[in-house]
Amino acid sequence: MKFIIQREYLVRSVQDVMKAVSSRTTIPILTGIKIVATTEGVTLTGSDSDISIESFIPTEEAGDEIVEIKQVGSIVLQARFFSEIVKKLPKDTVEIEVQSNLLTIIRSGKAEFNLNGLDAEEYPHLPQIEENNVFKIPADLLKNMIRQTVFAVSTSETRPILTGVNWKVENNELVCIATDSHRLAMRNAKIETENERSYHAVIPGKSLNELSKILDDTNDLVDIVITENQVLFKTKHLLFFSRLLDGNYPDTSRLIPTESKTEVVLTTKEFLQAIDRASLLAREANNNVVKLSTLPDGVIEVSSISPEIGKVTEEIQSQSIEGEELKISFSAKYMMDALKALESSEIKISFTGAMRPFFIKAINDDTVFHLILPVRTF
Amino acid sequence: MKFIIQREYLVRSVQDVMKAVSSRTTIPILTGIKIVATTEGVTLTGSDSDISIESFIPTEEAGDEIVEIKQVGSIVLQARFFSEIVKKLPKDTVEIEVQSNLLTIIRSGKAEFNLNGLDAEEYPHLPQIEENNVFKIPADLLKNMIRQTVFAVSTSETRPILTGVNWKVENNELVCIATDSHRLAMRNAKIETENERSYHAVIPGKSLNELSKILDDTNDLVDIVITENQVLFKTKHLLFFSRLLDGNYPDTSRLIPTESKTEVVLTTKEFLQAIDRASLLAREANNNVVKLSTLPDGVIEVSSISPEIGKVTEEIQSQSIEGEELKISFSAKYMMDALKALESSEIKISFTGAMRPFFIKAINDDTVFHLILPVRTF
Repeated sequence: MKFIIQREYLVRSVQDVMKAVSSRTTIPILTGIKIVATTEGVTLTGSDSDISIESFIPTEEAGDEIVEIKQVGSIVLQARFFSEIVKKLPKDTVEIEVQSNLLTIIRSGKAEFNLNGLDAEEYPHLPQIEENNVFKIPADLLKNMIRQTVFAVSTSETRPILTGVNWKVENNELVCIATDSHRLAMRNAKIETENERSYHAVIPGKSLNELSKILDDTNDLVDIVITENQVLFKTKHLLFFSRLLDGNYPDTSRLIPTESKTEVVLTTKEFLQAIDRASLLAREANNNVVKLSTLPDGVIEVSSISPEIGKVTEEIQSQSIEGEELKISFSAKYMMDALKALESSEIKISFTGAMRPFFIKAINDDTVFHLILPVRTF
Repeated sequence: MKFIIQREYLVRSVQDVMKAVSSRTTIPILTGIKIVATTEGVTLTGSDSDISIESFIPTEEAGDEIVEIKQVGSIVLQARFFSEIVKKLPKDTVEIEVQSNLLTIIRSGKAEFNLNGLDAEEYPHLPQIEENNVFKIPADLLKNMIRQTVFAVSTSETRPILTGVNWKVENNELVCIATDSHRLAMRNAKIETENERSYHAVIPGKSLNELSKILDDTNDLVDIVITENQVLFKTKHLLFFSRLLDGNYPDTSRLIPTESKTEVVLTTKEFLQAIDRASLLAREANNNVVKLSTLPDGVIEVSSISPEIGKVTEEIQSQSIEGEELKISFSAKYMMDALKALESSEIKISFTGAMRPFFIKAINDDTVFHLILPVRTF
């Protein structure tokens, strides 16, 4: 293998596939990046066996030569060293050449690295994907859907299925749901599909976080292929594979309240900042719980007491309060997470009593909502 | 105690004194910030008993009212909560009022915090400083002198005296020296003194790092007072006290070579980047050691070998090489630290053989130099 490549393309591709490389792996070759040079271009692959990322650098793009292939071939190089080296090379082009015994020379200007490589034949194969269930979403919308739900997945391994986000495809719609059993986030969007099939998949939260870091903020369409146990995201030069979580995702539809007893409309930013302040004292003494009470004349009181440290109270003028009086306690963190995910200047909270989950949604936007379970303190 | 204060001044002062507050202290009251309101203004104090910082906020500055004192008095409030609270308060002004039983009310807009305070009488007194040995340095120069030396202090407690920087005042000059016994950094500067006395003090590296974060990048003069066991830095509204290290600082003057056998002049940036690249493979396998060899025609070769991983070599064209041929090995980290501290586009390195400390200085600047001990590998 021997090729000369524009360094900036190599750096970008290495950064992308590095997202899948873990230094803690039981399969030593997965600490490396696989490099394959063909007459079409150079393909880099990184994997931790849960996530695999493949990035392709074509020999030409828009008439500019990016890679000059001198000899096709393949090699696996230690990811940690290789990524640092390409970042710090002195010139705009890099020559990579595999000599005998897997010894690999990396040249740029007058700097020359000799790295001991590994045999690319020993690198695990990527999953084979049958493209039956395919749909398309713009990259920026996909990133947003991830951001608005993935924070609500469980971080505990007691119920592994809850560490993933449940993606349901039906009626040309994608519905993403995440819950850690204390709160729930839901986001839906219209999608382009090739058929009317209904199916669902539970994608690990970690995979979605990594995917989100790689995607550009463009409206280029991302192809999404879901199979029995894998999901594949395809962009122009990138393949992102993730295994799916195994097991039954709980039926969350019955959690969603159908009626409400108290409805409050609030300015998001003002409410968020008041919750943030109230949580300052609550963070350690009180498991981050704050209290919300309705007062006369459309006023909401947010408060928190930590006996050792002190207390905090703040009044907020709501846009409107309808229905019964209410005192309710909840996690400040869950509320702040939800408010940040809503992207709306005004929100409506629908309560069904102090002991029942409550419902938060943006005004004039039904594509996203959050559910939070209150905490019993009264 | 009761006063109304512009929040931005309070936030800034709290940030400054927080630099001295440690959450790990054996004296519980030192987890707090002392607040004293007098008719002149408000004074905040933070301390971890090694470093103490006092920040004064006057009632007026340039005709603007900053603090309105309603009632003089004092209180100690938990630093961690108080600093978070003042940062997040909703309005531009804050009212702080101590009620009975040390209960303190912090009000801003419709937010009200009640914090349990501690008795300010129980807060330790700051050191009493006799102002015999006083000199002045502009703040930006002081920051620079710290930056150019403090990185070379020892991080090991085996010889505690080496964790400090030795400050020597003589002949209207301040000389700062730091060494961890493997390398040495020296910086000197003219200072304004009131008398011709000579003295020295060893200031903990940690104190200098914290001081550096607080000082503005202005050329306002900082008053420096050195006593038997304390140093005090005074700016317009800030007092920064640090204890001094006890013990004899080693005589470093005999370490400095008086002759040289090989002199190399190099472009700093090019050399720094080459060392950085050579160290990439050396970082773990090889204790971060790189090798430098002189080649014919003014060429320098930088290289490193890590048997398991690979090797790297790079040639650099020097400005000039004079004297004997040389092969020498040294810590890439020490070299990079020194080059970054020099602030010069060209440097001269003077070697006295492969086993002797070598000397690095900027071209046309005698106020700063570095000494590095080589590593025996040949």
